[in-house]
Amino acid sequence: MNASNLPTTMSFIHDDFLLESEAAHDLYVGYAQGEPILDYHTHLPPDAIASNQGFATLFDIWLAGDHYKWRAMRANGIDEERITGSADPWDKFLAFAETVPHTLRNPLYHWVHLELKRYFGFDGLFGPDTAKDVWEAANAALATPAFRTQALLQSGNVRAVCTTDDPTDDLAHHRAIAAQAGFDTKVLPTFRPDWAMRLDEPDGWRAWVDKLEACAGQDCAALPGFVAALRGRHDFFHQSGCRLSDHGLVRTPALPCTEAEAAAIFGKARAGRDTSAEEREKFGAYLMLLFGEWNAERGWTMQFHVGPLRNNNFRLFEKLGRDIGCDSVGDDPQAASLGWLLGQLDARRALPKVIAYNINPGDNYPLATMLGNFQGGGVSRMQFGSGWWFLDTIEGMEWQLNTLSSTGLLSRFVGMLTDSRSFLSVPRHEYFRRVLCNLIGNDIERGHLPRDMDLVGGMVKRICYQNAADFLAI
Amino acid sequence: MNASNLPTTMSFIHDDFLLESEAAHDLYVGYAQGEPILDYHTHLPPDAIASNQGFATLFDIWLAGDHYKWRAMRANGIDEERITGSADPWDKFLAFAETVPHTLRNPLYHWVHLELKRYFGFDGLFGPDTAKDVWEAANAALATPAFRTQALLQSGNVRAVCTTDDPTDDLAHHRAIAAQAGFDTKVLPTFRPDWAMRLDEPDGWRAWVDKLEACAGQDCAALPGFVAALRGRHDFFHQSGCRLSDHGLVRTPALPCTEAEAAAIFGKARAGRDTSAEEREKFGAYLMLLFGEWNAERGWTMQFHVGPLRNNNFRLFEKLGRDIGCDSVGDDPQAASLGWLLGQLDARRALPKVIAYNINPGDNYPLATMLGNFQGGGVSRMQFGSGWWFLDTIEGMEWQLNTLSSTGLLSRFVGMLTDSRSFLSVPRHEYFRRVLCNLIGNDIERGHLPRDMDLVGGMVKRICYQNAADFLAI
Amino acid sequence: MNASNLPTTMSFIHDDFLLESEAAHDLYVGYAQGEPILDYHTHLPPDAIASNQGFATLFDIWLAGDHYKWRAMRANGIDEERITGSADPWDKFLAFAETVPHTLRNPLYHWVHLELKRYFGFDGLFGPDTAKDVWEAANAALATPAFRTQALLQSGNVRAVCTTDDPTDDLAHHRAIAAQAGFDTKVLPTFRPDWAMRLDEPDGWRAWVDKLEACAGQDCAALPGFVAALRGRHDFFHQSGCRLSDHGLVRTPALPCTEAEAAAIFGKARAGRDTSAEEREKFGAYLMLLFGEWNAERGWTMQFHVGPLRNNNFRLFEKLGRDIGCDSVGDDPQAASLGWLLGQLDARRALPKVIAYNINPGDNYPLATMLGNFQGGGVSRMQFGSGWWFLDTIEGMEWQLNTLSSTGLLSRFVGMLTDSRSFLSVPRHEYFRRVLCNLIGNDIERGHLPRDMDLVGGMVKRICYQNAADFLAI
Repeated sequence: MNASNLPTTMSFIHDDFLLESEAAHDLYVGYAQGEPILDYHTHLPPDAIASNQGFATLFDIWLAGDHYKWRAMRANGIDEERITGSADPWDKFLAFAETVPHTLRNPLYHWVHLELKRYFGFDGLFGPDTAKDVWEAANAALATPAFRTQALLQSGNVRAVCTTDDPTDDLAHHRAIAAQAGFDTKVLPTFRPDWAMRLDEPDGWRAWVDKLEACAGQDCAALPGFVAALRGRHDFFHQSGCRLSDHGLVRTPALPCTEAEAAAIFGKARAGRDTSAEEREKFGAYLMLLFGEWNAERGWTMQFHVGPLRNNNFRLFEKLGRDIGCDSVGDDPQAASLGWLLGQLDARRALPKVIAYNINPGDNYPLATMLGNFQGGGVSRMQFGSGWWFLDTIEGMEWQLNTLSSTGLLSRFVGMLTDSRSFLSVPRHEYFRRVLCNLIGNDIERGHLPRDMDLVGGMVKRICYQNAADFLAI
Repeated sequence: MNASNLPTTMSFIHDDFLLESEAAHDLYVGYAQGEPILDYHTHLPPDAIASNQGFATLFDIWLAGDHYKWRAMRANGIDEERITGSADPWDKFLAFAETVPHTLRNPLYHWVHLELKRYFGFDGLFGPDTAKDVWEAANAALATPAFRTQALLQSGNVRAVCTTDDPTDDLAHHRAIAAQAGFDTKVLPTFRPDWAMRLDEPDGWRAWVDKLEACAGQDCAALPGFVAALRGRHDFFHQSGCRLSDHGLVRTPALPCTEAEAAAIFGKARAGRDTSAEEREKFGAYLMLLFGEWNAERGWTMQFHVGPLRNNNFRLFEKLGRDIGCDSVGDDPQAASLGWLLGQLDARRALPKVIAYNINPGDNYPLATMLGNFQGGGVSRMQFGSGWWFLDTIEGMEWQLNTLSSTGLLSRFVGMLTDSRSFLSVPRHEYFRRVLCNLIGNDIERGHLPRDMDLVGGMVKRICYQNAADFLAI
Repeated sequence: MNASNLPTTMSFIHDDFLLESEAAHDLYVGYAQGEPILDYHTHLPPDAIASNQGFATLFDIWLAGDHYKWRAMRANGIDEERITGSADPWDKFLAFAETVPHTLRNPLYHWVHLELKRYFGFDGLFGPDTAKDVWEAANAALATPAFRTQALLQSGNVRAVCTTDDPTDDLAHHRAIAAQAGFDTKVLPTFRPDWAMRLDEPDGWRAWVDKLEACAGQDCAALPGFVAALRGRHDFFHQSGCRLSDHGLVRTPALPCTEAEAAAIFGKARAGRDTSAEEREKFGAYLMLLFGEWNAERGWTMQFHVGPLRNNNFRLFEKLGRDIGCDSVGDDPQAASLGWLLGQLDARRALPKVIAYNINPGDNYPLATMLGNFQGGGVSRMQFGSGWWFLDTIEGMEWQLNTLSSTGLLSRFVGMLTDSRSFLSVPRHEYFRRVLCNLIGNDIERGHLPRDMDLVGGMVKRICYQNAADFLAI
């Protein structure tokens, strides 16, 4: 993918980047590097894949939708005008270039250089002085067919990506992609029904129920219709190749709720009346148990993303909406409520495969070990998910890998996903694999693991691809 | 103890296993390796020691009661039938052997190989292909007198073990052991009155009070009799050599409770009426303060094990009972409630020696520093306990050692215990000592500690045995 | 400052102490070592600076007010008599010397040796056998002018120190210092109005309000007068050069409180009636928002120190009062309440510059990322503060630096402060700088950062001094 003749000052991203020992190198080269990619949780826009979209500038593909970069720019004192405002793309790009030298030790510094090297062959240090050269070389490359969305996925050896989709989505783009000859990366939807539980935003919730009613062709005046509509969408997603659900939660709801209670709460909310925090938690628990049962029945995997406090900056939320870089790490307890939900599903003989991700590193041990209580009936059916969001960093990944190793079976781990909105994020799998190989290679060098490369390398290899393929069965 | 001629493939457990520097090696060989063992908290069955029990197969001594192994097997997709079910011992052993290669980086992988090497001289990598050889060699060794319980303790250089005992226990086995000539490992009971506080399991609690009544010969119709019965057992345990109590708690109770309140709560529970969570916490606090006073008076050490969420998997609990691998790390706050209890005892001039263990690594700093507030009146009378259960791992031990070092006096630490149910767990002390020497040796190599082996090695040596012997005075 | 001819046994504190690589050495020597010091948060007594106080013995300058040392001595079993009691200074010093060899791996062991080397040229290992020599050499040095307070600050290259002051303080010493020719270290007050919110100590609070009333010349019978008095003191502090406020809190209060509610709560408390926990939190929130607005208006920086549980040992509190070594790490959640306060101030367009410090390492990620939600309008206006108190250790500093790096911009960090009560604490900046250079040098050696010393060294240099100078604008 070396698409540029930019001057090379020094090789920061060299062949052994992050591989600090011979064993690490051998693991990476021999077992990790060549594995295909199954990116089972992303926020890639399916329409951009269906239309095989191209990108006019590096701003469009790299900055326009990336709240990690926006957040760093705000911390660097860049005016919002040059972040999400009306400044022109080049000026915003330059503002980002001014910021990058101040991101030393932040994962952005690595991601930026890894992506510029892998996609555009840029081998220097990115900053205001190199910004113009990078901008011109990258924009030239982006004009070529190799930088359209489908080519990016295929050259990245991506066998499948799972997108994240609202139940009301018609999945037209997914069906269009599936029908396209000559593009063999699977693009599958994920059922993410967060809006169904969002009674704390009553206007938005009611509008969403209206939308669900329309798309499901199912009257939602009362709970049974609402549930039937959701179930209909679950069926439809299944027919469209969906094999995962995903749930974004401050914490998993954990209050028992009878059907009669759920019906009353639904009726109140549908009628525009206020609900209490307790009622919302009950209603959430009622729905989560339903979703869990449906998932178990269908053989789906249920993902929990727990812990973030979202939309904390009210002024920016009002101006820019959700997912704009003003979310952060919460510190609610997670263990007992997750245990309640899993236990309820298990008692109903309806515990699906689970992947749970936490955003607070303090939740690593409680979550990983609570999942361990419900193992059984298959290989590591309860998965402690990869380092997520603020933990999608070297230290976050190492903590997750170490927690899973110490308290469960690393060997059975389903591995990395990007959680990304960007088509240039594929090298994040490379980044994870280098971190993984370095950690494990280091263990070999220290004698913590036997120097048996078939044994240890086999584990590394499975974590890169095959475990996820076997587990998710997509 | 090399009792086998199994083929040696490679030496994973070599002389310098976990000792990554010359200083680490020198500390281990010069100061740690030769120290005797005082295993002051275990779950070893006293009857098996009294009868000098032998074991027919490696299954009996190694798998039959080890919920760590069961948990790993469940995570590896092994059917419960081959874990705790009716499969035959060899088949269960083979199922474990299938699991072990998937435990790379889990402490089990180290424990398994360390135990197989130390007891049976097995120097290969354990797995399905070596299972048969190990099974046969080990079973042959187990048939010899060297593998009866008393010989295992004595060849392990174990000076004393403390078991964990219900107040209603008659301690007959302890008394029998003490009376045996030619076996000089002390085997002492520990007073663990968890059932006294378990009002949340009312039927079990009432049955237990009946048992207490019978064994104490003391009417327990009302609180005074109940307290007198407990006190009687405390006296009896003291006469039988007990010098520690132990308390398993989600968190230490911290609600003031008058004697009248305690009497009312007791009366309610004894009459089979429901108690509230608040009442149970009050009653727990009332009893914990009593136990603390008695311990202080007798010069005992009081152990708190705080934090686990137990019996999370209701289906397996129904089928298999407690302690079967379905417990996990809780995330309740611990600091204020522990502070309340210690403060109350201190105000009554009745603060005993304390060892507090936490299961959530996030509690390390709060617990270690809360204990530090009550130091005084003796050498580190408040002890921050060794890495426990899910933290009885390299990273867990290192966190505990680093927390204690940064916030207190590592030099005064009472060190390791196994908390084990297995007679093959003695090498866990070796494991701890290697981790300790490696950590401290590394500090010497980095210049964080002076290269003064008498000073630093003296500390290592005391942590291995003498600190505990001095502290516990048994 | 080598003021002694004590025998040198070995060089524990050598030139490359804590610098474990060439890159670390180069960063320290080339970019960190020579930077001046801006100690923007201390508890130094301004009267001792104004009077250019000297110290009779090493006890007076080193032990008399240092609760870190007292705490270690208590853990070592030293009787309170020889810690804070009536034992003579030499005997207390000896008791400390007996303790120091038992502080191996505690930060005290490093601080003690670093301070003895830098100030008195002592190059041995401190303990009972060297105590007499150190005592005599140090006391001789202390008799010289180089060891008076002003000389100590100036020889330490301290450009400015900020003290911590009650709003009722007349700041006479600060004004006297400012008027002194020939002493050019700025000594500036910090506005710390903790007593204004301390309704949970009603007698102390009322006495304090009386004092405020008197010093402000403002009737405080009702809320408006109280607020006006506080505002008057804020103005007065500003005129005296104050540019920071500081707030010690278990957690930031987060309950909305109208002016009418605040007035009612104030009236109740002023009249000597009890207030509820909810009322106290409301009143605290009301005041914190006011302080925030005033700080924003004046361009001050607002510091939050959150999390400690204080005065846990009631018996020692009764005997010795506050800040005597019986405080510890709390475990209340912090994220949502901090978010509420920052969000309220932001909504009022009155969010000042902020530095937030936590005492529980588990709060690192929640706090650092919550601050990140409110960045904007300047360079890293929300600062995640340096490792504090129990985290003012190598591991605590590294955690803080890594958290900030992974979730924000290390490059914009305002760096170290001592938080100290001792005039011999200046080398704590050296200690921090060595830790910083070692961590970052290590990253260079591992290839995690480019080997571009201008880029990386420039960041190190700014963290040592210039970032704080620019940020605080004092």
